[in-house]
Amino acid sequence: MTGRVSLVGAGPGDPELLTLRAVKRLEEADLVLYDALVDPDTLQFAPRARRFFVGKRAGRPAIRQDAINRLMIREARRGHRIVRLKCGDPFVFGRGGEEALALAAAGIPCEVVPGISSAIAAPLLSGIPVTHRGLASAFVVVSGHAEAAYAPVLRSLTPGSATVVVLMGLANRTAIAQALLDAGWSGQTPAAVLIGVSRAGEASWHGVLDGLQSQVVDDEGNHPGIIVVGAVAALAGIIAARDEEPEALPTTASLG
Amino acid sequence: MTGRVSLVGAGPGDPELLTLRAVKRLEEADLVLYDALVDPDTLQFAPRARRFFVGKRAGRPAIRQDAINRLMIREARRGHRIVRLKCGDPFVFGRGGEEALALAAAGIPCEVVPGISSAIAAPLLSGIPVTHRGLASAFVVVSGHAEAAYAPVLRSLTPGSATVVVLMGLANRTAIAQALLDAGWSGQTPAAVLIGVSRAGEASWHGVLDGLQSQVVDDEGNHPGIIVVGAVAALAGIIAARDEEPEALPTTASLG
Repeated sequence: MTGRVSLVGAGPGDPELLTLRAVKRLEEADLVLYDALVDPDTLQFAPRARRFFVGKRAGRPAIRQDAINRLMIREARRGHRIVRLKCGDPFVFGRGGEEALALAAAGIPCEVVPGISSAIAAPLLSGIPVTHRGLASAFVVVSGHAEAAYAPVLRSLTPGSATVVVLMGLANRTAIAQALLDAGWSGQTPAAVLIGVSRAGEASWHGVLDGLQSQVVDDEGNHPGIIVVGAVAALAGIIAARDEEPEALPTTASLG
Repeated sequence: MTGRVSLVGAGPGDPELLTLRAVKRLEEADLVLYDALVDPDTLQFAPRARRFFVGKRAGRPAIRQDAINRLMIREARRGHRIVRLKCGDPFVFGRGGEEALALAAAGIPCEVVPGISSAIAAPLLSGIPVTHRGLASAFVVVSGHAEAAYAPVLRSLTPGSATVVVLMGLANRTAIAQALLDAGWSGQTPAAVLIGVSRAGEASWHGVLDGLQSQVVDDEGNHPGIIVVGAVAALAGIIAARDEEPEALPTTASLG
């Protein structure tokens, strides 16, 4: 009797942003393998499961990707129900597709449960709609971790034709801003940096593209940071998306 | 005593893809205003609320946008808790930002609850990760309802640099495919059309960009259709994302 693996999106952090199906799979699980950014309160929904941390600690993986795959396959063959719990959505970065392929190759039944992606929800919870009539009828989500990942998109896109959302790009924000400026984007385009949205200690910076380059933002924390560039970023000051507003960072200071 | 309005994302259709917060707001609601594509089973979570359909019927709005805004403001001033229930995510198309601005201008407390967006989840549930190591480190989501909305993005983007997801674009799929071909995309780029994913009667077509133009796909149903173009679309045949697979359309037949 073969078990099964559910690749489950945990959303941006707040456990209330889990889906009903994610909660159901956690409740049924025999084993939960979870990433670094998964909120500990999320695991309360899996009281009977063994739980293993398989994310990164101090920038290094606690366990290699092929070892995670082998573990899932072995446990599924023992008939267990496994939840592979990932931040945000399993198929927006985070190697969910690779895990699904490894499971398919091993003949293990696999299901993918979508999660609320921070790419859309972090702007939303900050009062920034990624699309808005008259301002943006498209948005681009790009990984900022390496130039080869973001440059082909950001250097080619017609300036202002889409809201730009960069994940994992805080460390490269100067080069990312320069790529947009080189492509003809105005330095006065509204921009925002959103850190740890929906988590304790979240913070944000709001300004314009030119300011993004000079801005001192600490990327060393455990919180994921998201860069948003586009006319819609200016709506953050007008739209109230939550009862409690997050802390606004001083525009010239370090997050230190 | 002023009530409050929650702009709530209902996800792609299946009620299990609602978030816990969405369910909580529905349970507390005095009034629910819902769109055409919201699954009727979703409304079961709001047994004590009055419920009004405010979506489109046969392509025409049942009620004008400014009337929806006035209704929300009036009911909130009466102290009621209102849920404005939208398909997918409230800030991915669907005028959520406009409603939030109208509420802010009227001084009505407003909260936005993110939902699972079909832009990411329809591909996911069809076995297509919008990002995948070595295949796509970016994705673009664009409205296909008018050339002015999609052309600036699709004509400028470096071919193959991002997965392209087009919402509301089935009727314009020939022009959308041509815009990509004109920009230098290969006609052999994998492509898919996903209709009503996670709903009864869902269907899909899988092929390549060249085939998208000639393909006969019925856009007249009530189900939303999504076009995906990019190398990741070829993974649909390999990755199993659900226990039950949706019906595959014959590649040369009409959905009629």
